[in-house]
Amino acid sequence: MALSRRMAVIGVGLIGGSLARILRERGEVGEVVGVGRQAPNLQRAVELGVIDRYTHDPCEGVSGADLVFLATPVCSIAPVLARIAPFLAPGCVVTDGGSVKEAIVSTCEPLMPEGAHFVGGHPIAGTENSGVDASFSTLFQGKRCILTPTRQTDPPSLEKVVRMWEIAGSEVVCMDARKHDRIVAAISHLPHMVAYSLVNAVGGYDRFDESILSYSAGGFRDFTRIASSDPAMWRDIALMNRSALLEMMDFFERHFQALRSLVEGGDASGLEEFFLRSKKSRDSIQ
Amino acid sequence: MALSRRMAVIGVGLIGGSLARILRERGEVGEVVGVGRQAPNLQRAVELGVIDRYTHDPCEGVSGADLVFLATPVCSIAPVLARIAPFLAPGCVVTDGGSVKEAIVSTCEPLMPEGAHFVGGHPIAGTENSGVDASFSTLFQGKRCILTPTRQTDPPSLEKVVRMWEIAGSEVVCMDARKHDRIVAAISHLPHMVAYSLVNAVGGYDRFDESILSYSAGGFRDFTRIASSDPAMWRDIALMNRSALLEMMDFFERHFQALRSLVEGGDASGLEEFFLRSKKSRDSIQ
Repeated sequence: MALSRRMAVIGVGLIGGSLARILRERGEVGEVVGVGRQAPNLQRAVELGVIDRYTHDPCEGVSGADLVFLATPVCSIAPVLARIAPFLAPGCVVTDGGSVKEAIVSTCEPLMPEGAHFVGGHPIAGTENSGVDASFSTLFQGKRCILTPTRQTDPPSLEKVVRMWEIAGSEVVCMDARKHDRIVAAISHLPHMVAYSLVNAVGGYDRFDESILSYSAGGFRDFTRIASSDPAMWRDIALMNRSALLEMMDFFERHFQALRSLVEGGDASGLEEFFLRSKKSRDSIQ
Repeated sequence: MALSRRMAVIGVGLIGGSLARILRERGEVGEVVGVGRQAPNLQRAVELGVIDRYTHDPCEGVSGADLVFLATPVCSIAPVLARIAPFLAPGCVVTDGGSVKEAIVSTCEPLMPEGAHFVGGHPIAGTENSGVDASFSTLFQGKRCILTPTRQTDPPSLEKVVRMWEIAGSEVVCMDARKHDRIVAAISHLPHMVAYSLVNAVGGYDRFDESILSYSAGGFRDFTRIASSDPAMWRDIALMNRSALLEMMDFFERHFQALRSLVEGGDASGLEEFFLRSKKSRDSIQ
């Protein structure tokens, strides 16, 4: 039996578009309805065969759907769900792809009408690009997808979402939302904060009559590529994952200060040990 | 007239090997003598046509040379120069490729014998790889090379080193050593300290029963690639560029703390402004 007769994808960009592509490719979905605000992007999605049809109205979009994927920016997920909730068909499963889970799950679960079910999710995948043109069916292949069920989660609905991500090629891991938020704060949100701060520090250094940035070579450019990410998206993530992010920023801070003390003290063996420990960890994830 | 009749390259790795390759390719050097400790690497350099012959004795290696390139780790440059100084031919020009300049130039200049001349230099180029097998003749093509002459620098010797790097395809910039050290502290040494600290922070987070690092995706891996760099080399750089590095670490720290305050205060417009400023700087060096 196919995964879904009719699926609504709200937000047809890199994530929503890539998921729709693979499910259609595998024949796991009867019809995909795209929902979004920008007509050119949605028209392009139809041309590319990512979706069957589209609407700008999310309430109309979810009509008759047995599966809804919310792939909008993190701040919009709960507001969109609040709008569509009254229009969800009985038995409909709603899941999302937001990179922050505690705030989203705790807001979304109480919004669900009787007989429809919410499952929080976050595929750990992405590229620097956005929009449906950037989507591709193997985006999730071999990547992890974290689901964050609660005691309220409907088991068959969880099973359906697990199956959806397995069809997409992901390894599905379930954990509580607080743990998820700390993990992504560490491996994704913190590096972005560090990169944004580094570029502002180097770009803001004004003790010379020319910009230091003009001397940057390939290494600096590679290292700071993520500081080109969308400012509005990262504003929302920083606001929504505030407490986990602060914990990780402070954790980083302690390590950075420990290194600063080694540099200040000219501690040769301490410095080598610090760098070696880091190199070993880094090499373990090559 | 060719640049050099006989050139000694002390340290035939990525940097020394790449410079020897391009100068030979252009017919700008009569003979290249390689100096190093590891016979297999030096034999390989002969096989690859990077050098004509080699010796393990730096004093013998510089005999009769009119150009000497010191491409050893930063901590060895001055000690090696102290050994070879009595064996330098009159008129010989000695230059280096060390990524720290003030400590090296201030130690090396007084070591030079009458009639031989030192010019400090640093090509802003490199890859993650090392050894002569990693060298290639276009490594310096289109890259900047910073030279740090002083009031003691012999003008014709400076001219010769400028010409050498221009033959290698670099854009040569002259500045004082203190400015150089601050620039590389900012664009290279600081990012390494940040990356090493980030990996140690994330790798050292022990509040879960599993390692957070196992969740790292492509973004984290790309961002922390430089934390795989050689710990001994970075120990030496941190020791030798201590004061400039501390200044830049503190400068970064202030920006990171400013961002932390914005996150803690939930300051949406402040966060977006911070990220946008960074994105603009980063995009300007694409």
